[in-house]
Formats: sequence, C-alpha cells, structure tokens
Amino acid sequence: MSSIKKAEKAWPDLTRLLYPSGVAVIGASIKPNSISGQPLAHMIAGRYEGKLFPVNPSRTEVQGLAAYRDVREIPGPVDAAVIAVPAIHVPEALEQCGEAGIPYAVVLTSGFIDLGNEAGAALEKRLRESIAKSGVRVVGPNCVGVMNLTNRAYLAFGGGVSDKSLRPGPMAIISQSGGFGQSMMTFANLHGVGCNYVVSCGNETDLHLFDFAHEFLDREEVKLLAIYMESSVEGAHIRALGQHALRVNKPILILKVGNNDVSRRAASSHTGRITADYALFRTAFREGGYIEVNDLDELADVARLVIAGKYPKGRRVGVLTGSGGWGVMMAEQCEKNGLVLPQISETSKENLLKLSSPFASLGNPIDQMASYSEQHKMLEIILDDPSFDQYMVRSVAGPKTGEWAEKFIETSAKTDKPVIVLWASVPTRDAEIRESIESAGHLCSNYAGRAARAVARFTDFAIKRHRFDNPPDCGFSRLVPERSLELGNGRGALNEHQSKQCLAQYGIPVTREIVLDLGQIEALGECPISFPVAVKVVSCDIGHKTEAGVVKLGIETLNDLKREAKVVRDSALRYLPTAHIEGIAIQEMVSGIEVILGAVNDVNFGPYVMLGLGGVYAELLNDVTHRFSPVSVGEAMEMIAEIRGGEILKGYRGDSPADISALAEAIHKLSCLIVDHGNQIAEIEINPLFVLPKGAGVVAADALIVRSQEEH
Amino acid sequence: MSSIKKAEKAWPDLTRLLYPSGVAVIGASIKPNSISGQPLAHMIAGRYEGKLFPVNPSRTEVQGLAAYRDVREIPGPVDAAVIAVPAIHVPEALEQCGEAGIPYAVVLTSGFIDLGNEAGAALEKRLRESIAKSGVRVVGPNCVGVMNLTNRAYLAFGGGVSDKSLRPGPMAIISQSGGFGQSMMTFANLHGVGCNYVVSCGNETDLHLFDFAHEFLDREEVKLLAIYMESSVEGAHIRALGQHALRVNKPILILKVGNNDVSRRAASSHTGRITADYALFRTAFREGGYIEVNDLDELADVARLVIAGKYPKGRRVGVLTGSGGWGVMMAEQCEKNGLVLPQISETSKENLLKLSSPFASLGNPIDQMASYSEQHKMLEIILDDPSFDQYMVRSVAGPKTGEWAEKFIETSAKTDKPVIVLWASVPTRDAEIRESIESAGHLCSNYAGRAARAVARFTDFAIKRHRFDNPPDCGFSRLVPERSLELGNGRGALNEHQSKQCLAQYGIPVTREIVLDLGQIEALGECPISFPVAVKVVSCDIGHKTEAGVVKLGIETLNDLKREAKVVRDSALRYLPTAHIEGIAIQEMVSGIEVILGAVNDVNFGPYVMLGLGGVYAELLNDVTHRFSPVSVGEAMEMIAEIRGGEILKGYRGDSPADISALAEAIHKLSCLIVDHGNQIAEIEINPLFVLPKGAGVVAADALIVRSQEEH
Repeated sequence: MSSIKKAEKAWPDLTRLLYPSGVAVIGASIKPNSISGQPLAHMIAGRYEGKLFPVNPSRTEVQGLAAYRDVREIPGPVDAAVIAVPAIHVPEALEQCGEAGIPYAVVLTSGFIDLGNEAGAALEKRLRESIAKSGVRVVGPNCVGVMNLTNRAYLAFGGGVSDKSLRPGPMAIISQSGGFGQSMMTFANLHGVGCNYVVSCGNETDLHLFDFAHEFLDREEVKLLAIYMESSVEGAHIRALGQHALRVNKPILILKVGNNDVSRRAASSHTGRITADYALFRTAFREGGYIEVNDLDELADVARLVIAGKYPKGRRVGVLTGSGGWGVMMAEQCEKNGLVLPQISETSKENLLKLSSPFASLGNPIDQMASYSEQHKMLEIILDDPSFDQYMVRSVAGPKTGEWAEKFIETSAKTDKPVIVLWASVPTRDAEIRESIESAGHLCSNYAGRAARAVARFTDFAIKRHRFDNPPDCGFSRLVPERSLELGNGRGALNEHQSKQCLAQYGIPVTREIVLDLGQIEALGECPISFPVAVKVVSCDIGHKTEAGVVKLGIETLNDLKREAKVVRDSALRYLPTAHIEGIAIQEMVSGIEVILGAVNDVNFGPYVMLGLGGVYAELLNDVTHRFSPVSVGEAMEMIAEIRGGEILKGYRGDSPADISALAEAIHKLSCLIVDHGNQIAEIEINPLFVLPKGAGVVAADALIVRSQEEH
Repeated sequence: MSSIKKAEKAWPDLTRLLYPSGVAVIGASIKPNSISGQPLAHMIAGRYEGKLFPVNPSRTEVQGLAAYRDVREIPGPVDAAVIAVPAIHVPEALEQCGEAGIPYAVVLTSGFIDLGNEAGAALEKRLRESIAKSGVRVVGPNCVGVMNLTNRAYLAFGGGVSDKSLRPGPMAIISQSGGFGQSMMTFANLHGVGCNYVVSCGNETDLHLFDFAHEFLDREEVKLLAIYMESSVEGAHIRALGQHALRVNKPILILKVGNNDVSRRAASSHTGRITADYALFRTAFREGGYIEVNDLDELADVARLVIAGKYPKGRRVGVLTGSGGWGVMMAEQCEKNGLVLPQISETSKENLLKLSSPFASLGNPIDQMASYSEQHKMLEIILDDPSFDQYMVRSVAGPKTGEWAEKFIETSAKTDKPVIVLWASVPTRDAEIRESIESAGHLCSNYAGRAARAVARFTDFAIKRHRFDNPPDCGFSRLVPERSLELGNGRGALNEHQSKQCLAQYGIPVTREIVLDLGQIEALGECPISFPVAVKVVSCDIGHKTEAGVVKLGIETLNDLKREAKVVRDSALRYLPTAHIEGIAIQEMVSGIEVILGAVNDVNFGPYVMLGLGGVYAELLNDVTHRFSPVSVGEAMEMIAEIRGGEILKGYRGDSPADISALAEAIHKLSCLIVDHGNQIAEIEINPLFVLPKGAGVVAADALIVRSQEEH
C-alpha cells in the first residue's frame, strides 16, 4: 500500500497528533453512536481537555458544541482533524485542512484502495495527490483512528473506545486491523496492562506502522509496544525497528498473522523454496527486540512481565509449591517451553533442612509443607540461591493468604530476579490480595501453561537484550577479506565449476576437480584426480543435473571414466539439445555428513543464509534455520545447534563428531560473500556441503550461484 | 502403589460411598479449619442431609454434634467413614469400621508408603492387612477425599471444598493429586462447568483411579470425566477404559503429567529405545475415548463443548466475522490446530449476494458488513451450507449485542452443527448476554487460539465416536492366518535368517538369501543369487552387525564374494571370539525407500507396532507413530499418513510413488504376528524394510526377533 522507505529515514514527530490543543471533526454527526458521531461523543464523555470543533455545513450545533461550516473558518489552533465525510469528499477536506494549517488528519472513511476495485484505486490516487498538495500528514484512511488514553484525545470510533474501565498505562499499540487493535487494548486493560496510545493504521497511504513505532519507542512514557501485523514487504524496516527496540530496551510484542500465505517467487535453489516468508519474519523477530505472541492472553501475560521490570539473566527456574501435582505441572510446562529446572544448591539444601518444616521434595520443584510462619524463610533461602535466574511460586490458599502475600511481597522485593506467582486461591476469592501481588510487580497467573510460555518468551528477550549490550565475540570479525568476484556480464546461473571457484575465493573448500572437453578426456593417459572420481557435465543451461542424468559417481578406472564422460555428455544433449556444454568435470569423491547451505538476497529482508541437513528430510520436516547476513562464526555455531539434525554432526550414537567449526566458518564466509555482492547475486546454494570428521574441514561437492535478474 | 488388576474385572458399585445415608468422621476435630475438622464443617455448612457422626473419644460433642467414643457405638446406619486419625491408628480404625459393618472409608491421613521410607512401607503393609481383614473398601490414604456436589457429601478437606460458588453439574473429576483435583473443580466451575463428583485417589492402596472411572462412566448423571494422571503402569486398564468411554459416549478429558520421565527398560531394538512411555499413553488416548488437554483453561473449554452436546461430523469450519483482523486470526488458529476452512458453496454465495449487505470477503473467513437486521439471515444461509461441519462466529459488540444474541441463539438452534462464538464485547460488559449464549449451549470464548484448540480436540473425539459406531472397514479382517511359529526353546534373539523366516511365514516378503558355511562358499562354482549380493555373518550373538563389521554390500563377482565371506567371518570372531557363527548369508541386494518397522510386547500396554522412516532422522526428530496390535490395513494406512516422512512414500518432488499398500499390509501382518505370539516374543524389528515402487511390494532386508525373557 505504501512505498518502501529507506530504513535510515527521519521519522516524523507525532506529538501534535497525539497531544492536539484543538481537534476538528470534519463530518461530525449529531448521532453520538454513528461512526462520524463517535469521536466527538467519546471525547466529550472522556472530558478531553483540548478544544473540539465540529465541522458540519448543515448544522450550527453538533452534540452541544458550536459547529463550523468549513474547517478554514475555525478560529482556534487545531493540531489534528478527524475526517469522517464520504470517501469522495475526503481529498477536498484534506486540502482544506492544509489551507487551514492543520498538520495532521485521521481519515476514518473507507472506500479507497481497500475496495479492491478501480473506483477505489482512482480515489486512492486522488487522495495521494491531496496529501502531497496539502502537506497534511495522514493516518488511514479506512482506520478506526488514534487514541491517546492519557489525555483522552480519542480521534477514533469503535466499541473499545467507550470502555469505561480503561486506565492509561505504559503500553502503546499499533494495529493493521482496527477491530483487533481495540481488542488488544481491551484485553490488556482487563489483565491490568494499561495503554497510553492506540493506533489503527488503516490503508497506510501516508503514515505507516513504522512511523508510529519509532515515535512510540522514542517516547519516554512508552515502556513497550504491541503490534498486530498482517503483512509487510518492509523487511528492512522490521529489522531496523527490531535493533532500535533493543537499543532503547523496549520490547515489541508482535502478533503476526497471514503466515500461511506462502507466495515465494519461483526460486532456482532449494534454499529459496524451503524458505517461506514467515521464516524470514521469524528470523527478523528473533534477531531484534521482538517477542512474538500468538494470542491476546499471551500478549497480556508477557506485557505484565515486561512492566514488572525485573529481567531474568537466564532460563533457570526454581519452582516452589505446596502441591505435588501443581509442582509437576509447573515443571513440565517450564521444560516444554525451553526453560530449565536445575537442582537447588547444597548450601540452600542445608539451610532448608535447618528449618523445622518437612519437605516432600528438596529437588526442583521444591515441594514444601512449611508452616505459614516459615514460608517466607524458605522463600528467602531459595531466592538467594545462585542456581536460579527466576522463580515460579505457587501461592497458599485459605484464610492465611493475605498474611502470606504480605510477606511474599516483602521477601521478593529483596531480589532482582523475577518471581512469578501461580495463584492458588479460588478465583472468585481474594481478588484484592491478588491485586496487591500484581501491583508489587509480579505476574500472577492461574494457569501453569500460560505462565510458563510467557516467562519463556520474556526470557528470550532478556537474553537478547543482555547480549546486545555485551556482544559475545567482541563485535563482528571477518575471517575473509572483501573480494570482488568476477561474475561475468550475463544474468542467470553460473555453472557448477564457476560457482565453486567463487566459493573457493571466499575460503570455502571445494572438491578438487578439472574441467576438460570430451576429446581431452578420451586422450588421457591417466586420471588427473585419484580414483574414485565423479564426472559431471558443466553447463549453465542444466540446473537439475541428477534429473538430466549428467552425473556419474564412483568411477574407479580410466576406461570407465572415458566411457561415462561420453554417456553424460550424450545425456545432456538428449535432455536439452540446445544446452551449451562448457566441459566435463572430473571431481574427487568426498564423503561425510551432507548439509545444505544456502544464501539468498531477499528482496524485502536483504541477504540471509540458510542451513539444513542434507537429504529430503530437512526440507520435509522444515528442519532449517536462517540468519541475516553477515553472520559471525559464533552465530553460525548457534545455527548449527538450532537444527534438530545438528545432533548428527555432534556424533550421534557413537559416531565420531564432525568438523562443526569448519562448518561454522563456511557459513560465515558464505554470508560475507553474499553481503559483498548483494546486488549482483540472487541466490547461492551449496548442496551438498560435506562435513568431514573433526579437524578435516568441509568440502562443497556441488554449488550453484544465480546472478540477479536486474540491471545494476 | 497398587497391584495390576485384570482389565476384565468387575468394578465395585460405589453408590453408598457417594450417597451415604450416614457418615462417621473418625478423629473429628472441634477446630473447623483443621484437616480433621474440615469434613464435618464443610458438610454442616453445605447442609448435607444425611446423618453425621463425629467419633472422638475425648469429646461428647464436636462442632455441635453428639460425638461417639468408638465407631462401633454409632446407632444409625453408616455407609461411609472419614478417617483422620494419625497414621499409626488408621489400621485399627479401619478394622473397627469393618466390625461396625461400614462398607467404605476415606482415609485422609498421610504417612504411609508416601513417606518413601521403611516406616511408611511397614505401615502401608499393616494397612493392607487391615483392609483385607475388615472388608472395608478404602479411598486413599494420603488423599483430600471424595466430594459429591449434588448432596454435599463432602468426605474431604481443602480450600476448594469451601468455595461457595460451586454448582453441581455433569462432570466427574478423578485426580492423582489432591490439590490439582480441587483446582480442576474450581476452574471448571469458574468457567460454568459444574461437577457432580470429585475424587482424590491418594495412594490407591485399595480403590484405584479405574474403580472410580468405571463407576462414573456408568452413572447416568455423569456426562464426561476429567482425570489428572501422574503415572500409571496400568496400560491395559487405560486402554479398556478408553474403549468403554467410546461405548457409552462420554469423553474422558485427561491431563497426563510425568511425561518427561523417560525410563524405558534397556531395549534390544531401536523401536524400544525410540518409544518413550508417553508415546504409548498418547497412543492409548488416541485409540480410546480420551481428549488430552494440557492445562485447566483448555479443560474448561473442551468441557463446555462436550456439554453443549452438538458433535461435529468433521473438521470443516466456517468462520464468520465482521472484523477482517479477527477473521485472519480465527482462520490461522483453526488451521494451526488441524481444522480446515473450505470455501462456501456457490449456492450460499448466490443467496448471500441476494442480501443487501456488502461483504468484504465471500470466501472463508466470511467477512461481512451486514446490517444488524440481516445478520441472522446471513447466518442462516451459512449454517445451511453443507460445506461446513461447524462454525466460529464472531459476535457483534455495542448497543445491539443483546438483540443480536437473541436472534443468534434462535437461528443456531435450528442446526445440529456446533456454533462457537468469539466474544466481541468488552469483557467487563454484557455478561448476562454472554451467559444467555453459553446457556444455549455455545462455547463463548475471548481467545481465538484457545477456542480453536478446544474445537480441534473435541472434533477428534467426535470423529472417533462416529467411527466407533461405524467401523471403517466393516470390522477387523485378517490377511494372514494365525500360525504357531517355531521359536525354539532358548531365550534372547533369533538370528537374522531365522527372524526373516518367521516374517516370511506371516507373508512379509524378505530378501532372497541362502546361508552357507565358509567352506561351502569357497567351493561355489557360481553364485546362487544374482549379483550384486550382500554377505552377512549369521549369529544370534552379534546384534549390531554394522558395528561388528560383519556385513558387506554390493558384491559383484564370485571372487569378491569368496574373499568378503572370509573377511566378515574373521571380523565376527575378532569382534566377539566366543560368538557362535551359524553361517554366512548371501542375500540379494534391494533398493527402495527405507522404513523401520517394529513391534514390541509392552509390559504395561501390550503389543504395539511402530513405524518410522529409515535413517537416523526419524529417530532424531521423533517422526514415528505407534498403534496397539492388531492393526487393520486401514489403520496401517493412517499410520503411514501420520509420519511427516510419509510424504516421501507418496512420491516426493516428482519421484514415483512407493508401494504404500504393500507397506500397510506388512504393518498389519507384523501386528498379527506379535499378537499371535504375544507372550513368547518381546520385540521384532525390521530395519530396513525397503518399500519398492507402487505395485512392486516391500522387502525386509534385515530383521531381528527377540524372544521374551520370562518363562511361559
């Protein structure tokens, strides 16, 4: 919908939109429940303190306020206009705003490009022209508007706006669906997470999700952001925003939908085909300051942890419970979500045994039957234990709950580790006690599964944040100098031999091989490569070599070599009579663990690398991982650890371990190669790359480099 | 904790325990908040209508009731006793109950085998003796008791019992954790799901989870069961209960924990090693009338669907929404949970277009902008559409919500398909409208993810139920007659050749092969099997043939055959000098897609089969599936479809499809083999089984049969 902006653009200052001293409502209706009546009605009900100017040429008064015929007649200063006139009149209204010097407009009206037809497209074009002409910055059209909950500047309509229980708070919401955005606000509020700003982006004809996101991240009163994203072609912006979120230490809780819609361009390599758009979104979310959530309940739970403000240093959770059953539940849900449950330290154990209370289990979960008077002593001992980064504590229930809560809050305040409460009381009881625990900054959850999921996701962010400040390998260091590869003038694929030569120049080992023509092979007195060897037709025109029957492996004698060289050449010409055959390669045979290593210069996200184990299984089970380039050797090691098939490289079931370091170096070098030649290379694939036993390195047995289709 | 019972046992009738005309409380305390005071206090507060008899030798009155010195002195009829005296006195109290003719006792006291020490074990033994001697049937010890919410016979203690908001309903709960069981009750009640019976099993010294489960399934007032299970060695009971649940059409919502605790016996085959206990529990849950849930929120959601009583005929969901964003969310969450979203029929489309309302999308989700007056007309059209088995409808919000709800209920009542509501109103508003929708039998959920998960799981049950009444292949038909294989007198493994002969007798094709001794091979004038062939040492003593170096593949000439035969024989003797070598097999070489097919006679669950794709990946990624034996050909086809690697068999990326039918037959036959020889065979593994192209069958290239270790 909107043009792609450069990631380094200057973001607009939206202060006057969020804090207008006066608001004009163009098309304001006398019916407070109608869409065009709601903004005024909500602001009047909310006691918005700025000036309100209804514009309605056929009324002198609207909802008790003096109405103006024309926005240009309004005397007072107006910082923002809400436009709720029929679509056809919107461009004119905008231009009038421009003439009146109003800097911002929120267009609620739909019926532009959202119609999906020609009439809508024409009107959208007209709208763009008005925006350009007027100089007004526009939210929408086709949106439910912008809400500031701190001053009740509700330039908006919708069921959520009238919610009387709304309380402002530190979260800002940006949504590409108006209805869903208000649901996010409503449910967050219901779970005690207040918002300050809520924006519905609409068609994003002018102001875009990223304009709002940068504005909010840079506002001191915003502590976290929640975004509902339907689709985006702005990978570079997503990545830049993620880095900014880490920089300012404000997580972005992102709910990304539209992930089933796999519409990759036809790709020459497996890498491109295996990689769904969503994999790149997830890669961007993982890399940056995002926390991906799947539903509104999860969003609220994670938000509470963020707001509580205690960041765990790691994934080690201590579980305290008085119910064995709940202990098992909590422990399993933690482990299911990638948290770990170490045993308590010997010191803690000794200290606990000094108490008079019995323990059903002194492991982890710690199943205690402590008397009420000793509960906090026990908690104190566990909170001091350096074995744990954070805690899940099941509360007590019954008449002593209040007393317990008071001591719990007091004790937990002494640690900077997060302490999450699993709430044991009957849900209809003790609401005020629960609230006191929540106000003290503890996520208080009824459900072990939900709590564990939220804790795990918040922990991921905390670890990323820590790393951002403390880069693991003292920044990025290159193992290979930048080179300018000779890629020729053509487009499309290089042949295998050329592709491998490029890799070799970047220090990625390739098979020893020699390319001859058939006559030269027939004249050979001995094989230039020790047997066994492979022969392959070298031709840019034949992408799928196995399918074309132009590869023979495991040749042991000179006679076989000569015979098979002819066979593959004939196969090539049968397969594609017009193929230009550049020669026949004689290659050494290599064996090892096969991996597939790819790199793509994605049109939205930029260059990335992909790693998977070889064979059809990796693809079928989607056991692949991605990182944007360049990738340090350390990050490459993480990629190897991430794929489930990576176990095989470590030496599975007694096999000797493979050369994981060499693989990591190859990933790093390939990532440098694609970055250095970003706009010249579309895709690179090494398939297979053989990983040899530890110390013996890696060898690329086949490779493909596809040049970009565009002019440079 | 308890002995394994036969699945076909007669279950006790627990009516007098659940509906006692009189209850004795032995050790009743005057303190109503103490454990031994609570049962009386709860029953007095709950106005239990039966007679209450406190037994306390040092009091004449307890909590306002006349107390007895001894249970044998109670005049009135007593159907159940609650025992809350110190552990050491429990056996005596039980015996006194026996003398008094009391048929049931609930022992709350802990300190028996649950202590995990010798003193506890001794007391447990003493308790067993008392149970046998007295003839009293016992719940517990170490439990929070038994609750009947319909007559308030609360033979129990705990925070949940005092919940004033409890309302009886159609769900019965059985829990192996007392605390968690009460949480299940509390949260179900909070979400509008009432319970009639809640049982905490405790140590299960006498009455066991399965005694309660069968009692409840057979009681008319129980419509569904919820079970919290920590661990169980009673696989046969779990399976039998699952069948019974299907028979009586009452789902068992099961929350199974303790699944990370993988403690398989040392297994000779991959099959045994790959198969964690939990895989067998899941297999039993899938086979029977269970719905596995992961947390209390999910439990409540599924329970509401069960109680609503409309069973979907399939997985096809129609999604109706007025918010595009919510439509995407609902659709994605449905698909994520295995539900499908077909397009609406052409007829429905035509009928919808006759309405005056515009539609943002006429696909599925159906994104409508209908006027309020047309909402129900639209709904009517969609509900009639045979493309859908069930629906998710997002409600409207705002002032017309009540009106909408009324018409929604009226319209939805006309279909027997489930209609689930995603609730759009602000959660703090319109509670009574929501309640009216829920009372009309609709799950009304705030969260798309939770709703979709619950719907998917309930649909699984509905489909199982339907199948139970309409078996897909007219019952089970065997393709192979029962045979009595000659397994010899020994224990341990048969050699590969013997194992394959057994398979062949069950109609599972094996490689052509001949076993000779080294001298015979050296004297061969030509190879009895066409080249290429494999040679393998045949010896029961060598399990891991590849590791021992006793296999050579791809032999092409008679000379090589003779040389390699000697090589493998020598390797065998080097590997294990004491090995008894039964011969050297010359086998045909086969190629195809490798699968691993196993069968195990599990000590708890009985015989099962396992299928996975060959190679290390299936194991690493746990891409295997299990079924209890015998397995019909139809079920075997389902197994093949279930493994993700099964795509390869269908012909992946243009490969020709493999002989899936032959594989299914082999699975079926193997399942018959293990059933027919259940107590003689411990494990069977075919690894690899080659699946040839369609029509060409399967061939077992290696096989292992391990006989049972026990006497028969």
